[in-house]
Amino acid sequence: MIAKKMVKYVEGSSITRAMFEEGKKLAKKYGASNVYDFSLGNPSTPPPASVKKALVNIIEDTKPNKLHGYMNNSGHEEVREAIAMSLNEKFKTSFTQKNIIMTVGAAGGLNVILKVLLDSGDEVVAFAPYFGEYNNYVANFDGKITVIPPDISSFQPDIKELQKKVTARTKAVIINTPNNPTGVIYSTDTIKKIAQVLEDKQKEYGTQIYIISDEPYRELAYDGVEVPYITKYYKNAIVAYSYSKSLSLPGERIGYLAIPDEVDDFENVISAANVATRILGFVNAPSIMQLAVAQCLDETSDISVYDTNRRLLYDKLCSLGFDCVKPQGAFYLWVKTPEDDLKFANKAKEFNILLVPGSSFMCSGYVRIAYCVDTDMIKRSFAAFEKLAAIYINK
Amino acid sequence: MIAKKMVKYVEGSSITRAMFEEGKKLAKKYGASNVYDFSLGNPSTPPPASVKKALVNIIEDTKPNKLHGYMNNSGHEEVREAIAMSLNEKFKTSFTQKNIIMTVGAAGGLNVILKVLLDSGDEVVAFAPYFGEYNNYVANFDGKITVIPPDISSFQPDIKELQKKVTARTKAVIINTPNNPTGVIYSTDTIKKIAQVLEDKQKEYGTQIYIISDEPYRELAYDGVEVPYITKYYKNAIVAYSYSKSLSLPGERIGYLAIPDEVDDFENVISAANVATRILGFVNAPSIMQLAVAQCLDETSDISVYDTNRRLLYDKLCSLGFDCVKPQGAFYLWVKTPEDDLKFANKAKEFNILLVPGSSFMCSGYVRIAYCVDTDMIKRSFAAFEKLAAIYINK
Repeated sequence: MIAKKMVKYVEGSSITRAMFEEGKKLAKKYGASNVYDFSLGNPSTPPPASVKKALVNIIEDTKPNKLHGYMNNSGHEEVREAIAMSLNEKFKTSFTQKNIIMTVGAAGGLNVILKVLLDSGDEVVAFAPYFGEYNNYVANFDGKITVIPPDISSFQPDIKELQKKVTARTKAVIINTPNNPTGVIYSTDTIKKIAQVLEDKQKEYGTQIYIISDEPYRELAYDGVEVPYITKYYKNAIVAYSYSKSLSLPGERIGYLAIPDEVDDFENVISAANVATRILGFVNAPSIMQLAVAQCLDETSDISVYDTNRRLLYDKLCSLGFDCVKPQGAFYLWVKTPEDDLKFANKAKEFNILLVPGSSFMCSGYVRIAYCVDTDMIKRSFAAFEKLAAIYINK
Repeated sequence: MIAKKMVKYVEGSSITRAMFEEGKKLAKKYGASNVYDFSLGNPSTPPPASVKKALVNIIEDTKPNKLHGYMNNSGHEEVREAIAMSLNEKFKTSFTQKNIIMTVGAAGGLNVILKVLLDSGDEVVAFAPYFGEYNNYVANFDGKITVIPPDISSFQPDIKELQKKVTARTKAVIINTPNNPTGVIYSTDTIKKIAQVLEDKQKEYGTQIYIISDEPYRELAYDGVEVPYITKYYKNAIVAYSYSKSLSLPGERIGYLAIPDEVDDFENVISAANVATRILGFVNAPSIMQLAVAQCLDETSDISVYDTNRRLLYDKLCSLGFDCVKPQGAFYLWVKTPEDDLKFANKAKEFNILLVPGSSFMCSGYVRIAYCVDTDMIKRSFAAFEKLAAIYINK
């Protein structure tokens, strides 16, 4: 028998699988080109050419025992140094290799840093709507998640609510900008206000409260909007980065934690992150991909495709009367639903449109449309969206 | 501040790091070729040529979004099917892709299956001496480890002690054969006896007790000794495999769990393993390495090098009067220490020999010598071992 703890996860997973199976059934019944799957955050643009070039070079030129062998649990030192230098160049930070821990994607990085920080019952704040996996990651370490309800006027974090909900047990605040699922980028003003609240609360309680910035979408920002770099604004800030989206490598599980010298208890946080990487069973981030990304630090996949998709979809859905948050970043469109979001998502499915209900992100009344898909599919989906819209206009 | 839970790990890690740093200091002082580092299980033989060939082919021939993209959390279906077929061929099992979950090495696989099985306070049995990380993996899920003391006459698991220590809370028994650190291969007789005890205990308590077989050393068996395949002998058996040693890919973190149809609660165990892979932050095993190992399933690195090393080192240490367990598999020599194992390891260091004390494996009075090193280093170390032996002979 599986653990009692796991039963609810298995049930939840059956629902997701049922949805996935239904998508496949729809594709079989109507033809794949007549099904509009906007449910997954799986990048549609290929990695830049430099990734293939890097891999070929590495395989040809690196000694096999170095290429595929164990290294320090924190990763190859020259890779970490290259990442540190690249960050310093971009964000005027002053990292060296000791500030960088290579991780099995951002998901791995978040689990490592939560293992480092959380004792049973410690609280982690997240701003709704947010990536539902945060609940599971925090639960892995017997932490408690504190949900800050959304400010639906802007989907910037609600500072007043934050002020109310931070307690003496708050160990961390997770932020995610550009945001999944809203596409909002937290403004410099927002970041400064969050920092101020947490500094005040640290003083009030005599505690340390770490901001954990989950940044898989950092490079996906449109219209020249700047994504503030958190370590400039707050001392106890840790960045969990992933190359899944910027280099279209989600299946390779490669990312890093950036832990600045300035964080409280720095030496212990670094040592503990190294140990946590080992004892959680990651051991280290995959070696070949560490070496590959180090050669592509200033590259990204062709982001302009997502920008094209964003404009097309946003304009179309607005013109159909839907109330949409204009995405500044990431590759998600966040849309207010004219009825309950689960019902709306089911209704959309009748037109072969697959969406994720907002309740999966702790924010009902909205759906997430992932537009990291072929632009052609978006165009093809318009007729279906028209039919869907017609239902609600006629009501 | 880091979690209270993490403090002991950081302290332990500082000791290991201190040892490592001392090794580097020794190398600097005496020259790398005059330091004999037998402390790490890092394969010295390169991967077979087929690994490089597979990687080159995959990079050239696979569409990038397939090569580097997300797949099912359990891994690429065709990879899992290929592994299932290969196991069926080798061990007359009847696996299909649904029985195989790709994992981030065996360490990842062990964490996944322990997450699946353990509620807080559940017990996991391990036979001393064993890989010390088992303690940490079990603690990750608030389980309790039950240590079965060694039978030092053979270092086969002590069946009578097992019988005494299994309780109604025992959820799993970890076995590891060929064994780290002893090099012993559990005999068919041993396996049958373990199975019998657990079957009896399952009936007595009305529980399920899973054997988790940690098998990174499966292919490293010498003198034609057979390594029994656990699923033939016990119904509730799960295999955690790794390609780290068989293909010399430890830094790539690639392995799998094999979960036979016959295990109790099969469907839930499979679903939960899929979910656990996701929520522990692995998400999936690295894509490129999944595809690569699928093309090298009948290959291994050149194991004969380890066999040569084994003979050289065993013969030499026996001739010097050390009491050694003759390794049947893996790449470790297990040696009785003429004084306390920590003191002995420190004494060895005076002669630039780096070893791991048995107490790290829950079995003091012994040391582990990892002979996955250059054969030349082994030969060069003999003079140092002679000096070390002389101390104890003169006593």
